[in-house]
Amino acid sequence: MRTRAAVALQAGKPLEVMEVNLEGPKAGEVLVEIKATGICHTDEFTLSGADPEGLFPAILGHEGAGVVVEVGPGVTSLKPGDHVIPLYTPECRECEYCLHPKTNLCQAIRETQGKGLMPDGTSRFSTLDGDPILHYMGCSTFSNHTVLPEIALAKVREDAPFDKICYIGCGVTTGIGAVINTAKVEIGSRAIVFGLGGIGLNVIQGLRLAGADQIVGVDLNPAKREMAEKFGMTDFVNPSEVEGELVPYLVNLTKGGADYTFDATGNVQVMRAALESAHKGWGESIIIGVAPAGAEISTRPFQLVTGRSWRGTAFGGARGRTDVPKIVDWYMEGKIEIDPMITHTMGLDDINKGFDLMHKGESIRSVVIY
Amino acid sequence: MRTRAAVALQAGKPLEVMEVNLEGPKAGEVLVEIKATGICHTDEFTLSGADPEGLFPAILGHEGAGVVVEVGPGVTSLKPGDHVIPLYTPECRECEYCLHPKTNLCQAIRETQGKGLMPDGTSRFSTLDGDPILHYMGCSTFSNHTVLPEIALAKVREDAPFDKICYIGCGVTTGIGAVINTAKVEIGSRAIVFGLGGIGLNVIQGLRLAGADQIVGVDLNPAKREMAEKFGMTDFVNPSEVEGELVPYLVNLTKGGADYTFDATGNVQVMRAALESAHKGWGESIIIGVAPAGAEISTRPFQLVTGRSWRGTAFGGARGRTDVPKIVDWYMEGKIEIDPMITHTMGLDDINKGFDLMHKGESIRSVVIY
Repeated sequence: MRTRAAVALQAGKPLEVMEVNLEGPKAGEVLVEIKATGICHTDEFTLSGADPEGLFPAILGHEGAGVVVEVGPGVTSLKPGDHVIPLYTPECRECEYCLHPKTNLCQAIRETQGKGLMPDGTSRFSTLDGDPILHYMGCSTFSNHTVLPEIALAKVREDAPFDKICYIGCGVTTGIGAVINTAKVEIGSRAIVFGLGGIGLNVIQGLRLAGADQIVGVDLNPAKREMAEKFGMTDFVNPSEVEGELVPYLVNLTKGGADYTFDATGNVQVMRAALESAHKGWGESIIIGVAPAGAEISTRPFQLVTGRSWRGTAFGGARGRTDVPKIVDWYMEGKIEIDPMITHTMGLDDINKGFDLMHKGESIRSVVIY
Repeated sequence: MRTRAAVALQAGKPLEVMEVNLEGPKAGEVLVEIKATGICHTDEFTLSGADPEGLFPAILGHEGAGVVVEVGPGVTSLKPGDHVIPLYTPECRECEYCLHPKTNLCQAIRETQGKGLMPDGTSRFSTLDGDPILHYMGCSTFSNHTVLPEIALAKVREDAPFDKICYIGCGVTTGIGAVINTAKVEIGSRAIVFGLGGIGLNVIQGLRLAGADQIVGVDLNPAKREMAEKFGMTDFVNPSEVEGELVPYLVNLTKGGADYTFDATGNVQVMRAALESAHKGWGESIIIGVAPAGAEISTRPFQLVTGRSWRGTAFGGARGRTDVPKIVDWYMEGKIEIDPMITHTMGLDDINKGFDLMHKGESIRSVVIY
């Protein structure tokens, strides 16, 4: 079939919206009509050329929601008409990782996914001239139609709006999951969130959901304060306004250090501050942000010997097919908010405007509605 | 009263064995006759002058066992004749730390202990001329008699031999506790232990006790192999004999990385290797060793984002008054071994020979018997 997609032809260039060929689903695969997709910093990271593993030409996008159109042979858990959210971290429920209680990093299709291919080692996308176009993070939601493995689709309730729940495909789950799945924050905890962008705001609402007593937000941009307070932030700290060192200031503000700290900046210096502002004896610091290639984190080992833990999270520690439908329920039940974070919407033809808004820091999330 | 002690008069000089004055126990304190004491690398670290917090003159030693001689006013949990092990990490059971489920770092007397003083801010030791001599780690077991706070003494069974269980006051508990209390190693786990000295051997027997399936020991000294195998090591790796990089070799040996890795070297490069040889998705690396002043650990944050955790432990995460008596029981019941690790014994007059043996790498543990 033919479909319309925004194609990343090469690094550092705007996406080009064009007709592309899409092969139907093979065994274990599903054809999905994408109804809406968010534009995430990770798409920008790859498009810019900074991602050392970035491949071109490819159809980017990994934060979508849509409807199943057709299923390939052997697909049993989905049928045409089902509403789904694509998962860049699949859940096969059979690999060593899926069967281990401490991780969500299903490895079933990692190798081919990393090469921009479906599990059989080929791509479903091609130009009208027949040249192959690569998949991206196993999702390629910047195409109106896409093909994914069955294990990379979470089936969700049909009354949930696509233009909101698409955000659960990455940002919402990453932020809330870091709190609930990775840190396992207890009621009454004190926490610090570094970086109040799209991920940081979701960490904050995750902390509110978990019953944290104190939720400190740290950001250099004072304009971030108002929105963060709406999501549950109790204290705002602008490092540029702190006299002296930031870490002792935060330790004092949290009565000895936070029980949990979260880096949502990707800056390795901030990651260090996050660790060191965790409480002696039991404070845990969770890295969410993606650092530039080659950047390293450092600290004195004494910080760990005296009881702090340094950890990380990917996709919020969520097992997508199991956890994503629950988060959609939480949204529909009003336990969490998404609407205020989706600051801009646009059609596919205007997708590059979404990247511009991100560069200018004007958007929290832009969503493309097909 | 007068007692005999090995006094550290200044950094970098041998200890001097002499008569010293010892005041009796004040409120909440206990006078203990030390029957045996181990000589630990931490004593050497301070005596050498490398410890930036080292104070002199002081009576070192923190790994002892003895008998209660006299109790001060208000002491209720101990009486003369009780057998005890001094605790450099006390357990008051009342402070914020003791009441927190995730830490053993009781802070009740931390400030005065760090200054070499009893909780009332004074020392019980003095020279025969009346000049004060400082306590060390709240213990000062290099004195035949010493005074400690009640909260810094674990009461143990009376049939346990002092010259063996003194080692439970530091090395045994640190190594076994890192496995059981900090890492909480599950049966069937794979583990790697870096450094096969007195701590590393106890990590190994802790792993055996916890039912680990694979226990890899890493040391540059091939002479460490035999003893480590006796304690449960299943695989020995000498980094100088590995072709290529050590970390991929260890990852391959443990079928994808170890579930748990332990640094018992204090070398920050080894700490990095320990983290990076932990399994993607769920591997945890525990720092036990004490690094040189100012040394820092580093890694790429990707190591944590893909599921590894970096943690540390002090005194094996043990709550001394609660856990040390249990470890003494384990020794008496044959669950753990101590005797083969105590390679040398000597009288107090020969204590400097114990430090010499440590420098030469000839001893695992030297014990002074009073």
